[in-house]
Amino acid sequence: MPEDVKRCVLAYSGGLDTSCILAWLIEEGWEVICYMANVGQEEDWETARQKAMGVGAKKVYIEDLRDEFIHDTVLPAAKCNAIYENVYLLGTSLARPIIARRQIQIAEKENCIAVSHGCTGKGNDQVRFELAYYALKPDIQVIAPWRLPVFFDRFAGRTDLLNYAAEKGIPVTQTTKKPWSMDENIVHCSYEAGILEDPSLAPPTDMWTLTVDPKDAPDEEEELAVYFEKGNPCKLECKDGEFTDVVKIFHQLNTIARRNGVGRIDIVENRFSGLKSRGCYETPGLTILRSAHMDLEGLTMEREVRALRDQFVTFNLSKILYNGQYFSPCTRMLLAANDVSQEVVNGVVKLAVYKGNVSVRGRKSDTARLYDEKLASMDELGGFDPTWTSGFIQIESIRLRNSDEGKHWL
Amino acid sequence: MPEDVKRCVLAYSGGLDTSCILAWLIEEGWEVICYMANVGQEEDWETARQKAMGVGAKKVYIEDLRDEFIHDTVLPAAKCNAIYENVYLLGTSLARPIIARRQIQIAEKENCIAVSHGCTGKGNDQVRFELAYYALKPDIQVIAPWRLPVFFDRFAGRTDLLNYAAEKGIPVTQTTKKPWSMDENIVHCSYEAGILEDPSLAPPTDMWTLTVDPKDAPDEEEELAVYFEKGNPCKLECKDGEFTDVVKIFHQLNTIARRNGVGRIDIVENRFSGLKSRGCYETPGLTILRSAHMDLEGLTMEREVRALRDQFVTFNLSKILYNGQYFSPCTRMLLAANDVSQEVVNGVVKLAVYKGNVSVRGRKSDTARLYDEKLASMDELGGFDPTWTSGFIQIESIRLRNSDEGKHWL
Amino acid sequence: MPEDVKRCVLAYSGGLDTSCILAWLIEEGWEVICYMANVGQEEDWETARQKAMGVGAKKVYIEDLRDEFIHDTVLPAAKCNAIYENVYLLGTSLARPIIARRQIQIAEKENCIAVSHGCTGKGNDQVRFELAYYALKPDIQVIAPWRLPVFFDRFAGRTDLLNYAAEKGIPVTQTTKKPWSMDENIVHCSYEAGILEDPSLAPPTDMWTLTVDPKDAPDEEEELAVYFEKGNPCKLECKDGEFTDVVKIFHQLNTIARRNGVGRIDIVENRFSGLKSRGCYETPGLTILRSAHMDLEGLTMEREVRALRDQFVTFNLSKILYNGQYFSPCTRMLLAANDVSQEVVNGVVKLAVYKGNVSVRGRKSDTARLYDEKLASMDELGGFDPTWTSGFIQIESIRLRNSDEGKHWL
Amino acid sequence: MPEDVKRCVLAYSGGLDTSCILAWLIEEGWEVICYMANVGQEEDWETARQKAMGVGAKKVYIEDLRDEFIHDTVLPAAKCNAIYENVYLLGTSLARPIIARRQIQIAEKENCIAVSHGCTGKGNDQVRFELAYYALKPDIQVIAPWRLPVFFDRFAGRTDLLNYAAEKGIPVTQTTKKPWSMDENIVHCSYEAGILEDPSLAPPTDMWTLTVDPKDAPDEEEELAVYFEKGNPCKLECKDGEFTDVVKIFHQLNTIARRNGVGRIDIVENRFSGLKSRGCYETPGLTILRSAHMDLEGLTMEREVRALRDQFVTFNLSKILYNGQYFSPCTRMLLAANDVSQEVVNGVVKLAVYKGNVSVRGRKSDTARLYDEKLASMDELGGFDPTWTSGFIQIESIRLRNSDEGKHWL
Repeated sequence: MPEDVKRCVLAYSGGLDTSCILAWLIEEGWEVICYMANVGQEEDWETARQKAMGVGAKKVYIEDLRDEFIHDTVLPAAKCNAIYENVYLLGTSLARPIIARRQIQIAEKENCIAVSHGCTGKGNDQVRFELAYYALKPDIQVIAPWRLPVFFDRFAGRTDLLNYAAEKGIPVTQTTKKPWSMDENIVHCSYEAGILEDPSLAPPTDMWTLTVDPKDAPDEEEELAVYFEKGNPCKLECKDGEFTDVVKIFHQLNTIARRNGVGRIDIVENRFSGLKSRGCYETPGLTILRSAHMDLEGLTMEREVRALRDQFVTFNLSKILYNGQYFSPCTRMLLAANDVSQEVVNGVVKLAVYKGNVSVRGRKSDTARLYDEKLASMDELGGFDPTWTSGFIQIESIRLRNSDEGKHWL
Repeated sequence: MPEDVKRCVLAYSGGLDTSCILAWLIEEGWEVICYMANVGQEEDWETARQKAMGVGAKKVYIEDLRDEFIHDTVLPAAKCNAIYENVYLLGTSLARPIIARRQIQIAEKENCIAVSHGCTGKGNDQVRFELAYYALKPDIQVIAPWRLPVFFDRFAGRTDLLNYAAEKGIPVTQTTKKPWSMDENIVHCSYEAGILEDPSLAPPTDMWTLTVDPKDAPDEEEELAVYFEKGNPCKLECKDGEFTDVVKIFHQLNTIARRNGVGRIDIVENRFSGLKSRGCYETPGLTILRSAHMDLEGLTMEREVRALRDQFVTFNLSKILYNGQYFSPCTRMLLAANDVSQEVVNGVVKLAVYKGNVSVRGRKSDTARLYDEKLASMDELGGFDPTWTSGFIQIESIRLRNSDEGKHWL
Repeated sequence: MPEDVKRCVLAYSGGLDTSCILAWLIEEGWEVICYMANVGQEEDWETARQKAMGVGAKKVYIEDLRDEFIHDTVLPAAKCNAIYENVYLLGTSLARPIIARRQIQIAEKENCIAVSHGCTGKGNDQVRFELAYYALKPDIQVIAPWRLPVFFDRFAGRTDLLNYAAEKGIPVTQTTKKPWSMDENIVHCSYEAGILEDPSLAPPTDMWTLTVDPKDAPDEEEELAVYFEKGNPCKLECKDGEFTDVVKIFHQLNTIARRNGVGRIDIVENRFSGLKSRGCYETPGLTILRSAHMDLEGLTMEREVRALRDQFVTFNLSKILYNGQYFSPCTRMLLAANDVSQEVVNGVVKLAVYKGNVSVRGRKSDTARLYDEKLASMDELGGFDPTWTSGFIQIESIRLRNSDEGKHWL
Repeated sequence: MPEDVKRCVLAYSGGLDTSCILAWLIEEGWEVICYMANVGQEEDWETARQKAMGVGAKKVYIEDLRDEFIHDTVLPAAKCNAIYENVYLLGTSLARPIIARRQIQIAEKENCIAVSHGCTGKGNDQVRFELAYYALKPDIQVIAPWRLPVFFDRFAGRTDLLNYAAEKGIPVTQTTKKPWSMDENIVHCSYEAGILEDPSLAPPTDMWTLTVDPKDAPDEEEELAVYFEKGNPCKLECKDGEFTDVVKIFHQLNTIARRNGVGRIDIVENRFSGLKSRGCYETPGLTILRSAHMDLEGLTMEREVRALRDQFVTFNLSKILYNGQYFSPCTRMLLAANDVSQEVVNGVVKLAVYKGNVSVRGRKSDTARLYDEKLASMDELGGFDPTWTSGFIQIESIRLRNSDEGKHWL
């Protein structure tokens, strides 16, 4: 390879946009390596590979990142109950750092000076990809065609792309586009844009792809039991059997949640840019996992540890994930704190899922000394002396008694 | 009334415990005024009144606090999405300050130097009552018999109470006790203690009293629309009609939620004392109201206002409510902040409830300038210039690029 | 005035940069109104006015904003002890919203479609000005020449500006530039850039302009007493007399602090952009005011109110001020919370200043019920029963006893 | 030793109170082991040992905990800039866990079932000792005579103690008591109670024992340089030489601070009990160390790491230390987070101390990539493109522009 050839890794999807970007990059003098990340989405990988090679890619990487994804961001997020704006389980946000990291690794391996992607100029994903790129390889060059006037002025509408594809001999399989865009991975599927941009309208019932409609789910509850060790799932018992490999546990939770209609949400959220955005998401397995994990924390975690973790770790790590800053010292700081909080999160949670509901049906921990049944009991003292509480209340009342609040409330 | 008679207001329930406490207080030389607060629980008020008078109460107050309860704590809590440990909607905590305040008002009116209650010595409620008493009337004397050795040593078991009741001629209607204790009000019903103290066992299905089992709920979704003004519900449209009075709205939400199995939870929570406690709760209407309110905030609230509100107001006000410190300057501080956040929370949320699920089916606000459909659109620019994002990402990447994080993550 | 003339308000300083910008804007076809904000800096206002008119300004506004500045941002900031990164008292940040607001008011009055300023492209001040402009008048056009390639490429160095000034007949008084840049107002003076950009070197001793060197300050302490009402200073007693007007109080505090060498700091701070910056600041009067205010809060505020205020209001309002987001719903939310916290902050603080030190010499409040001398006393009980503490400790120890921490610490 | 002898470890000070407690415990049938912790206070250890043995102690332990104290709580606190209510550096709070831990270790070694101390019933120290005891050894019995009616009723005043001492042959050396109480250790000396309980009066100038009055300090600045590695001090250069051992560094910082009048404060603080308390403290060396450390963090830490650390770790660890909950999972969680934040805190800070002032005179770090002089420079671009900021401001303005704030502020 001559030294003066500019090489670039393109995050390639096989679709119209990134195929046109591929052709355009070549036109601009780049040698392009296409990279497809398998994070669990439905895809005809071989057809996509052929298409990329046909357009002129120098090489195509198809990387199976599913296990890495589960281990490196999904479980850490589940371990701290990550949630954005109280509703969104961050399914897309969790995949982006994993995809971006491999792209940088390929760039390094292939001596590429640049990376490129097909994200639009208004969304979160461009930010998530690029902040990950820059954090991992500060001197990387990023080509974001949808933010380059030379590109977006030329390809102002879908027709321009179709014409360009025809000109470049790019096969276009999908003649009509769905009236929304989707992003699927092992954790979730998201739906946004298009007709969903009117937040007053419910999405069409046939939009959802991962989960059955709760109304079509079985009429019987399905029971399961999730075991945890230091906050990580380590065993799943369910009617399909017993699973101990964490990847298999996660897949099986997905299976159970999908057939029972668990995990659909519809929200208006605040993007990193300050724009608001309406998103519909289905996050089947992680919804169950999060419920189970939070419940076991109730049994096992010390109150103040939990309060600090909720206010500090959960809130901030969720924001960091959403804003694409996962590869940052803040993340490592928050995960270090969370790990301490999880030392005691050992035990099992029994659950029932039924037509969209996830219900806890009991939990147990052998190491949970904080839940002492006798001490907690309202029916016996179990070593507790009620006069303690009198002193406690007297002390706690001091600052209220002397605050002269009566005039504000009576 | 002679000056030297000691007078006391007893929070009276009509049950065995407080009837015995009433008799015991009289035995101890107190003139006792019984006080029953109607916060929406099922009760035979007249029978209870007769019973109290029969035991020797000087007077019985039966106060209907339902509207005051909704206005003074339920709506403020709903307006900030109050929730304890991410799960519990604080139904009991919301009622306690309202009940305690009226008790203090009666004490003042009736020249009582003391108040008394029948709470046990391990629970949260004694703390909630007494901190409210002391905040509102710092010099009040509190008689908590279940923390006085002279009382709890004498009445060590239920048999002692039954014997004492027989001796004092107190009629005992309930010969067998439910194997758990309950607290019901307009907002929720709680179940704890007894057989529920083993957190590994699911509660019996016939325990729940307010809501139908989701499995027995109608097979059709029920649709409704909740309108808000500055964060307060101001109109409800549902199949039973249209409601504009806030109290009626709340009752109707309860009706809808109850028949659709909405609002059951089962958790292990951390009491103020540091003990853990297993509680089962059903909170029908408030569960719907909270979902609707949070959804509208997504559409209308500015991102950073919401983040501050979630981290600061919601978290802390929930803790304050749970710990019985509602009558405090902290509360007023947090509510003042929340009120500013709610100025823009105007509009309507359409919902569907179905077998335990509450789903948002669209939302709309005429005053929400932050959700600008054109600006938010992924399909058109709407005044947005994609090159802005390039600058934004460059600036946001500076601190990540120079943090040298690659070595930790690659 | 013809409708098709483009009019613009330029924040004009009288210096070389903004004089060249003025000439350049005219060259670009703008009709320019110059605006100078008097926020307390040393300035020859008339000379500057003549200069602007000479270069071709249509009109010159010189606005005395000093009192407005004190009332609208300085006192609110002092009332919540605002501080950035634990050290910087935000002197520049406090002035920017006030200056920007008047510029927008002039733009509206004078039918201007644009505003302009001479801030450089790396600093915080451009962000502070522009976020204020956009918040107050979302459709305003902003001309920031130092970020426009057509400008900054043309005027790449000081020589280019000097040549342009010569060409345009702009008088240049200052032939040599100080080796740092300064920003002075009623609150502080800042020094940055130039030779100060090497953070390992101490600034030259003759850099400081507002305060005497502590070593040159008087050898005797100077005593003063600051009175507060709801957190606002309302009286100052000092050797120069008694002051009750808040503006005069602030000026007198400056006088006292300046002659005693109070308020110099030297830090490396984090700019909004993520760049770091070395700044030296002197903030004389506000340093005394903040010390006095915080001390009185110690005597008068309820513990949890203070904790919430410190963690929530102080931290976040300081960040908001630093980042130029003062005109935002967050600010109003935080100020509303702070106002509740200040209801009780009434009383007097006696202080001594001496060669850079500010020392508290006693404080008193007639309304502070929380500091009850008898109750606080270690020498008498004052109504306190020591056995209360036994109960309190037992309760507080429950969650620690059962956390099994011994293995980690012994 | 017969099995039925009850053994107890008493935290013994050599003073009147604990000598009487020793005698009283023996009277009550305890076999008492006296324990004195040397945490750096002035003490005639041998006389105290003789006294304890004379009164009847079975054994006396005098433990030198100074190095352990510095390593185990002082440095961790300094590494997170611990401070209570923005003023108090927690000198007493830092020593208590160290003292309590050794007492528990002695109790275990000597087969004692109980520990005892002479703290009064209103202060923080009893709580700090006992929460540490219970955390480390949940089944320990604690004897706190000043909270036992049988003791405090008997010894209601100093005269009762003096009479008892005379009766038991306990030598009383100190015939008159200082009109305040003190607590000294390697970190600080505190003064409270007695005449200090009137917060409106300045303490007498001869009260302070560790530091010279700033007015009596040298007329020349003293310069020093503190080096840090991962947030820990690792070298001190000063006029007395160079120190690399962390214990010696700490002692030398004390020496420098003491002779220059650094570290005196006078505050009203909120005790754990909700009582307020006036305290005067001098904390010489730690005041310098904290200033140096915070300054280096400015140069080296990433902005958001710092913000999270300040809001979360500093605030909460300070509260935990103050409230005596150091041996808790929260502490380990917070320290784990802080350690990540300190990875980059490497370098040197040059300081000058002068008559009570600590001034930074420059700082330098070889590993600080975040302070890039060229990139930070206001005088050159250093790779920065000013148009980036335009995009950044446009994006940041979106949520403000659409918040409709003008009506509130114009």
